[in-house]
Amino acid sequence: MRGMEQPKQYQLIDYLSGFATPKRLERFEEVLSARTRYITVALENIFQGHNASAVLRSMECIGIQDIHVIENEYAYQVNPEIALGASKWLTVIRHSQRSDNTADAVHRIREKGYRIVATTPRRDAVAMDAFDLEKGPAVFFFGTELEGLSDAMLSLADEHVRIPICGFTESFNVSVSAALVMHPLAQKLRKSPSIPWRLSKAEKQALRLEWLKQSVRRSDLLIRRFFTAGS
Amino acid sequence: MRGMEQPKQYQLIDYLSGFATPKRLERFEEVLSARTRYITVALENIFQGHNASAVLRSMECIGIQDIHVIENEYAYQVNPEIALGASKWLTVIRHSQRSDNTADAVHRIREKGYRIVATTPRRDAVAMDAFDLEKGPAVFFFGTELEGLSDAMLSLADEHVRIPICGFTESFNVSVSAALVMHPLAQKLRKSPSIPWRLSKAEKQALRLEWLKQSVRRSDLLIRRFFTAGS
Repeated sequence: MRGMEQPKQYQLIDYLSGFATPKRLERFEEVLSARTRYITVALENIFQGHNASAVLRSMECIGIQDIHVIENEYAYQVNPEIALGASKWLTVIRHSQRSDNTADAVHRIREKGYRIVATTPRRDAVAMDAFDLEKGPAVFFFGTELEGLSDAMLSLADEHVRIPICGFTESFNVSVSAALVMHPLAQKLRKSPSIPWRLSKAEKQALRLEWLKQSVRRSDLLIRRFFTAGS
Repeated sequence: MRGMEQPKQYQLIDYLSGFATPKRLERFEEVLSARTRYITVALENIFQGHNASAVLRSMECIGIQDIHVIENEYAYQVNPEIALGASKWLTVIRHSQRSDNTADAVHRIREKGYRIVATTPRRDAVAMDAFDLEKGPAVFFFGTELEGLSDAMLSLADEHVRIPICGFTESFNVSVSAALVMHPLAQKLRKSPSIPWRLSKAEKQALRLEWLKQSVRRSDLLIRRFFTAGS
């Protein structure tokens, strides 16, 4: 259904909406109004499925729509118990086709206009509180539990940020790190009068359709019926 | 060694410090200078060991010294892989002796001068950003993954706070919740010119001794030697 004409897309959304409760449709609008692609997350080689799933869950709660998953070494699988169904509301973009998926992902995301930000415990990185959101959309890379981001990733990044640590333990769990970085940034975005953090009308429409497909029972059959009746 | 006379305690600390590297002793002082008991955390019936351990790890990173663990139904065990040794730097206070450990814990913690704060996803709770740290020390209760805090706990609390949720997923993972609540509060404390959030001299001394016992090899033998030589 990619490339579907706009009027047709609107009609299909109307049709499927008839099978969803008003409460659910209202919730869609609430969530859409808080959703952003201005900041996004990329996970590099997060080999523990429960960690990646925990990040998805938190990002869904925070209102971050896009999650990039880069697999150089480890295949990624959503752990349903931990993601609690979060992934069906998110746009998960996998980068796993090339020999060097990190460089490829950085290139593709930068082309879309994002600043490439590495998160690292290194003390010479900028403290996250000082991160400047005004300078443009940003993607935040998080690495594996033990090794952090790859050296390749760290050198490809435009900026480096860290979460201050005050204890003996050297790092937060990756899902905690991602939440601690993204939650305050998302809050700041929503309070900003000038940053264009909201989804466009077209993006909202595309998500309404995706979410209806996820929520309406037997939406696959209904969509087939819609196209058969309309042809 | 509880009730050890102060001069004796100082001597023992001096003695054990001789077996630690200068770098390690310096790190102790750095960590002690950021440590707080002004805010603390209580976990009610967190039956998943990896969740409790993940909370310990985050709190150690954030600089929260005391963690209360309330076990009404589930025995709690530290998961070493996830706590990453964090528990040895923390003061973990277990409440598991009574028939109603929640009420007992609330009573004991309140007696020490803490405001009792329940964290809950309920929309009528105060958003965490609006929490007033000036009003005195506070303990933040976190409940189980699926059921949250018990009704008993919710009604015993003086205050209720929530983390705003912007997605379909109804709650953050408990270790993420605890980090999202405690991290910004700890940052605010450290910037406050008026709130007495620092450990006292005596508290710092007691922790130096605890930490030396944890870090110095065969500290048990050394301590025995110290007391034999000194008697």
